[in-house]
Amino acid sequence: MNSETLSKFGEKKLIKQLARILKRRHDVVVGCGDDCAVVSLGPTATDELLLTSDAVIENIHFDASVPLELAGRKIIGRVISDIAAMSGQPSWCLIDLVAPPERKVDEIMQIYSGMTKFAEEYNMAIVGGDTARGGVLELHAFCVGTIPRGRAVLRSGAGKGDALFVTGTIGGSRSGKHLNFLPRLREGIFLRDWASSMIDISDGLASDLRHLIEASAVGVEIFMDKIPVSDVLNNLLPSEKIKHAFTDGEDFELLFTVPEKKKNAFLNRWNRMFDLSLSEIGIITETPGKITTKDQNDLFCMPDEGFDHFLTT
Amino acid sequence: MNSETLSKFGEKKLIKQLARILKRRHDVVVGCGDDCAVVSLGPTATDELLLTSDAVIENIHFDASVPLELAGRKIIGRVISDIAAMSGQPSWCLIDLVAPPERKVDEIMQIYSGMTKFAEEYNMAIVGGDTARGGVLELHAFCVGTIPRGRAVLRSGAGKGDALFVTGTIGGSRSGKHLNFLPRLREGIFLRDWASSMIDISDGLASDLRHLIEASAVGVEIFMDKIPVSDVLNNLLPSEKIKHAFTDGEDFELLFTVPEKKKNAFLNRWNRMFDLSLSEIGIITETPGKITTKDQNDLFCMPDEGFDHFLTT
Repeated sequence: MNSETLSKFGEKKLIKQLARILKRRHDVVVGCGDDCAVVSLGPTATDELLLTSDAVIENIHFDASVPLELAGRKIIGRVISDIAAMSGQPSWCLIDLVAPPERKVDEIMQIYSGMTKFAEEYNMAIVGGDTARGGVLELHAFCVGTIPRGRAVLRSGAGKGDALFVTGTIGGSRSGKHLNFLPRLREGIFLRDWASSMIDISDGLASDLRHLIEASAVGVEIFMDKIPVSDVLNNLLPSEKIKHAFTDGEDFELLFTVPEKKKNAFLNRWNRMFDLSLSEIGIITETPGKITTKDQNDLFCMPDEGFDHFLTT
Repeated sequence: MNSETLSKFGEKKLIKQLARILKRRHDVVVGCGDDCAVVSLGPTATDELLLTSDAVIENIHFDASVPLELAGRKIIGRVISDIAAMSGQPSWCLIDLVAPPERKVDEIMQIYSGMTKFAEEYNMAIVGGDTARGGVLELHAFCVGTIPRGRAVLRSGAGKGDALFVTGTIGGSRSGKHLNFLPRLREGIFLRDWASSMIDISDGLASDLRHLIEASAVGVEIFMDKIPVSDVLNNLLPSEKIKHAFTDGEDFELLFTVPEKKKNAFLNRWNRMFDLSLSEIGIITETPGKITTKDQNDLFCMPDEGFDHFLTT
């Protein structure tokens, strides 16, 4: 029995506890605990399915100042980023809308306009969903993607000596990127041939890196001077900049590992394929859960303090 | 431009308007407007996927007096009923949980306990989801089912002369059935070989029958004396009983049509397979959208007045 409140217990511990009571089925390749679930369509099927859901909620993920088209765009971007982080292709999506009855029809149409346009750019179809009334606007997206069998890149594949990379820049997404980010779908699919593990940065680098090393049962040494801090943080003190880069979240960049022996070929190929910047920010080490830096004094920001929906601190 | 509020415009009109702006993809066999979307896995795949989502929200679909295990059971039952109404088999499910931070961990575990137990009875696996904070408890379920290609029973297949059937009894579900109903999954799969059209009764017989005849572009003559009114309504006046049977909703019975020439064989087979009662409540007629009864005075309750999340009357 646990009579603690969610605000004391926190989202991460709750999810771990819930995952333990879910029943497995023979065709569930990956259940709770990765960016998507992976399920098998049978022994002869060439593809597996990726399943993910995500929510965008008024006053949490966007506020009244945000054009509603962008709130729609954001929920679509979030689920596509989850699929990208498994190296898959998003195909179909359902939307559960919750809305206060006093909202205008036009406002809802703006949300759906933002969703359909952005989904179309990634060749994903919105095929239905549900509507209900509630106190604030909520968008719940459920996305089904596909991946050739056995090719999903999981969080759990990092090995000692692998190089740790992150795409783009991180930190400060609240100044705009959290609404207009581009999910790294092409890059994610390309990484199918190169990455040993992958996650997208939604909760924040500190939190999501911890998810990756815990799933892989490895440690990591971080190159603090290589963290690609977003330009929007330029006005801050260095210590504040790096703290934001590690904890702000909603960057929707890809964080992944590449085995050392593939690294040079990977970098050559990446640079020919993409303009998107890439930073090598660390190396995987042996001790499970241990995070180190070359200068141990830099480690100030590594408590697991990404966004948690329930914790009140 | 439409600056009406949702409370004036209503859910049904909103959904029709949203459906119009969704983009189609070549592999979407059935989009918005049936119990589930149907999508193709490719020209050689033997199965198609059924996708559906549904929500159960505190103070709308259940109140504080309801044991939370039953709220969990209800959301699972709802999506399974959607899959059953297409003749499919539910396979995998994601859950988006929204909860106030002051809720206790135990309460959430009760909900998930109710969900996992009921899902297991129908051989469906809960494989993940998302959690977020909000003002009231909400459960959003996203379910993926499978169906042999081309075999989904749609709302749109009813033809003139088909017999209209409903399973079990209807009306008064608020007295308990809305929480402990059994989705008609075995029956739904059996009906794959017999039904020309099908829907599950969630909004209410009046509303869902209208969905079926509109999708099929047919009319219907109803046998008012054959409506299987639930025993829990026995204390009401006859006119009140029939009104509740048509409009209460959340019966989660199957409403379907069988071509006249198959009817006798179907009834023989049904009676050998199932103990569940079956009522022949009407016959499909030619004029699109027209609902008649033998005694026209009985038609009091046929305005489309099932449950609407947004309308305030």
